[in-house]
Amino acid sequence: MNAFRTRLGDFLDRPIVARTITAVILFNALLLGLETIPAAMAAAGPMILALDAACLAIFVAELTAKMVAQGRRFWRDGWNLFDTAIVGVALIPGSGSFSVLRALRILRVLRIVSVFPRLRRVVEGLITALPGMASVFVLMGILFYIGAVMATTLFGPSFPDWFGSLPQSGYTLFQIMTLESWSMGIVRPVMEVYPYAWAFFLPFILVTTFAVVNLLVGLIVNSMQDAHSEESNAATDAYRDEVLSKLADIEKRLDRLK
Amino acid sequence: MNAFRTRLGDFLDRPIVARTITAVILFNALLLGLETIPAAMAAAGPMILALDAACLAIFVAELTAKMVAQGRRFWRDGWNLFDTAIVGVALIPGSGSFSVLRALRILRVLRIVSVFPRLRRVVEGLITALPGMASVFVLMGILFYIGAVMATTLFGPSFPDWFGSLPQSGYTLFQIMTLESWSMGIVRPVMEVYPYAWAFFLPFILVTTFAVVNLLVGLIVNSMQDAHSEESNAATDAYRDEVLSKLADIEKRLDRLK
Amino acid sequence: MNAFRTRLGDFLDRPIVARTITAVILFNALLLGLETIPAAMAAAGPMILALDAACLAIFVAELTAKMVAQGRRFWRDGWNLFDTAIVGVALIPGSGSFSVLRALRILRVLRIVSVFPRLRRVVEGLITALPGMASVFVLMGILFYIGAVMATTLFGPSFPDWFGSLPQSGYTLFQIMTLESWSMGIVRPVMEVYPYAWAFFLPFILVTTFAVVNLLVGLIVNSMQDAHSEESNAATDAYRDEVLSKLADIEKRLDRLK
Amino acid sequence: MNAFRTRLGDFLDRPIVARTITAVILFNALLLGLETIPAAMAAAGPMILALDAACLAIFVAELTAKMVAQGRRFWRDGWNLFDTAIVGVALIPGSGSFSVLRALRILRVLRIVSVFPRLRRVVEGLITALPGMASVFVLMGILFYIGAVMATTLFGPSFPDWFGSLPQSGYTLFQIMTLESWSMGIVRPVMEVYPYAWAFFLPFILVTTFAVVNLLVGLIVNSMQDAHSEESNAATDAYRDEVLSKLADIEKRLDRLK
Repeated sequence: MNAFRTRLGDFLDRPIVARTITAVILFNALLLGLETIPAAMAAAGPMILALDAACLAIFVAELTAKMVAQGRRFWRDGWNLFDTAIVGVALIPGSGSFSVLRALRILRVLRIVSVFPRLRRVVEGLITALPGMASVFVLMGILFYIGAVMATTLFGPSFPDWFGSLPQSGYTLFQIMTLESWSMGIVRPVMEVYPYAWAFFLPFILVTTFAVVNLLVGLIVNSMQDAHSEESNAATDAYRDEVLSKLADIEKRLDRLK
Repeated sequence: MNAFRTRLGDFLDRPIVARTITAVILFNALLLGLETIPAAMAAAGPMILALDAACLAIFVAELTAKMVAQGRRFWRDGWNLFDTAIVGVALIPGSGSFSVLRALRILRVLRIVSVFPRLRRVVEGLITALPGMASVFVLMGILFYIGAVMATTLFGPSFPDWFGSLPQSGYTLFQIMTLESWSMGIVRPVMEVYPYAWAFFLPFILVTTFAVVNLLVGLIVNSMQDAHSEESNAATDAYRDEVLSKLADIEKRLDRLK
Repeated sequence: MNAFRTRLGDFLDRPIVARTITAVILFNALLLGLETIPAAMAAAGPMILALDAACLAIFVAELTAKMVAQGRRFWRDGWNLFDTAIVGVALIPGSGSFSVLRALRILRVLRIVSVFPRLRRVVEGLITALPGMASVFVLMGILFYIGAVMATTLFGPSFPDWFGSLPQSGYTLFQIMTLESWSMGIVRPVMEVYPYAWAFFLPFILVTTFAVVNLLVGLIVNSMQDAHSEESNAATDAYRDEVLSKLADIEKRLDRLK
Repeated sequence: MNAFRTRLGDFLDRPIVARTITAVILFNALLLGLETIPAAMAAAGPMILALDAACLAIFVAELTAKMVAQGRRFWRDGWNLFDTAIVGVALIPGSGSFSVLRALRILRVLRIVSVFPRLRRVVEGLITALPGMASVFVLMGILFYIGAVMATTLFGPSFPDWFGSLPQSGYTLFQIMTLESWSMGIVRPVMEVYPYAWAFFLPFILVTTFAVVNLLVGLIVNSMQDAHSEESNAATDAYRDEVLSKLADIEKRLDRLK
């Protein structure tokens, strides 16, 4: 059994396998794109769907082979879990009938990220930047909850479409934070009923924008430090070690002179 | 009396007390959220309001205990003043009848920030960044005052809704600074009456945007310097001290050789 | 004559003079603000206008005194030229009748910047950042000229309001660069007549946004370098000088030992 | 032949030639601007067109002379290819009748960039920044393809104008990424038919905005590092070399003392 798993693992590690999978992913992306074109579906619908099913079968086969070859190790790699979840969506029974689940199939194209090491590194870089931003995210969450409760209490009765419930208020406040139509679309109409509404919205805009700016600044400073320490320390450390060892050497020689 | 204050202070410092207060804050946040849902109020309105009052009583008790335990020290900590103000709002007589004061009760959730040290540090970081930006804020204030007076004088007669008074002009100029509907919503209609209005608005946009960008740049440079000096100086100072002491040592030994 | 000029200069340098001028500027700002309030003008219009004229007289007297005291030196300081221009606007005959010239009087409040050294430094900082951005500004100018000629040629016939002439196209392209209503307001309507209009607008947005981003990046890098070199070099240079002088000293002593 | 090419090359390198070409480019830019003014065309249309043709002839002559003088080298310089393409557009037969090709003639003004070394360097700087951003661009492309397929599948049937086909969905998603009217213009109307549409759009906005921010951060960090290493290394390297050579010298002298 173990010998079989080793040979299977060796087979999956061959460059030709990775290249084939990449080709299948791209071909599948093309097929899913074609499915959105009514003319293409009218002309060759059954063939497109059949090829799509074939692509899915190849993915399932590859992932099953990987599971067998890697055993428990398979489940420790985040990218494997990601691939399994993406492919698994298509296997949910009835996923052909619900348009949402059908739409999720295109997420399979994201497998291309796990196949190319450079894209993988970019995504890993984005994800590793998240924990450093956790405090600000929690703070933003608190601000949005407070803002949503206040907006629902104050403006909900008169503007049920925008501030009728907590989720609606949260959505509207997110729109205001992105500055989209915040004044002409939302705050000016609200001010016609509640003339002092600006006393709620302007501070909200200033505070959330300032928090977002600080997120950005933190991100820049962090990656700058990473880049800085990586780059300069190699040369500097070598130089410093050389100076210190030379000085120690001089001291030793002076001792011998005595 | 002092022994009592010491024991009260020790009791308040116990982790279980902080955890209980955190739980009460989160529970109160939930209650205030529930109050925005009509169905929840219809089903259990009196209970929700009673629990809310209980939460408030716990906060008042905690803050009173803190005041007693810490004496004058209590009023020197900004976070204590903040907590007292937030909780105090709910005690204003008649705060149950004015919807604005009722809406302010949700600000109590901000106490969660003063309870968690990490959130506290983020907010303190944001606040300490403010004084460095004071000059640019004053400048922005001057620009907005000048802009508001000019806009009110020039465009007020024809567009009373947007530029009818100094506060209205200030609000509209703030909207223009955020670039929200500045052209299609405001400047194009104004230009139909005053064809040269762009000569006022374009410079205003360029100058205020440039000032905001400089705020951002200043913020980045500042926190970069802080980060930089903190990080690199410890290692560098140790190295420099070692080099200088070794050189002094070599000189001493050479002196002895003579 | 020279003795008089020296004494006049000494008088103008006294803190009380600067403080008085600051007070007059702020008082004048208040007056000009009051002039925008119809009720205030109805109640005390003549007095407000008289006080405004008095403020102007004080400014003219102060600047004349400065001119006499400093002689030719007066005209070499940019801030003096700025003050003279701002105050001079109010002296143009007929400036009381044209609303534009009347509106320009509020610019006098900008004198507050030349009075406070900290604000002066902020503005000087903003202005010294401009030359480093000159190349990108010239490039933006070229891009806007090319964009305006192309848009006028292509879309002018069907959309005379937006692209009827070079200035109109330039204004619309500036609006598009700020991303204000670029799609819903301008490009979607244009695409209904010219379906391939996106092939002009999307590259324009990408290129100008990228240029603006590069301006910002250049600004950040520049002020970072300034800050960095200022801060670190004092300590570093002192340390380096000490190390080199000690090494030279050791070499000298070794020479003497021979 | 070679002697002729050398003399032609020398002639083209003379400052007077570059200055003449610059003047012709600017004059041509003016002419192309005049062509957009109907009054100017009515008054002097034939003359403007004739002068335009003369400018074009001068460009063709200059580029031909350069080709002859530089031989194969000509085609290795990207700026030469750029100039040839820009000038070549005007020579396509029928370019007088199609308004698009006529509009492209204004691109000739871009030759000004290849003439001025400082502008050239800015553009080269922008272009050299692109490869470092390639991974994020590929990722954005994948995100947009996935987003377009999903939006077309989910919302296409009800909103054919916005999400009817892959290109239309791509355009709409680009608009949403720039945050232009994303909520009031697109997502709120969509949510009236599909109440859970926010579950698609909000993550899309957050992910693409975050990717754009990371592009920006990467750009800043990169150019900071370039600036940093260029500036500081010259002085630092000289100092380090001096310290190390002095230390080596001291060791040698100590050896001689033994």
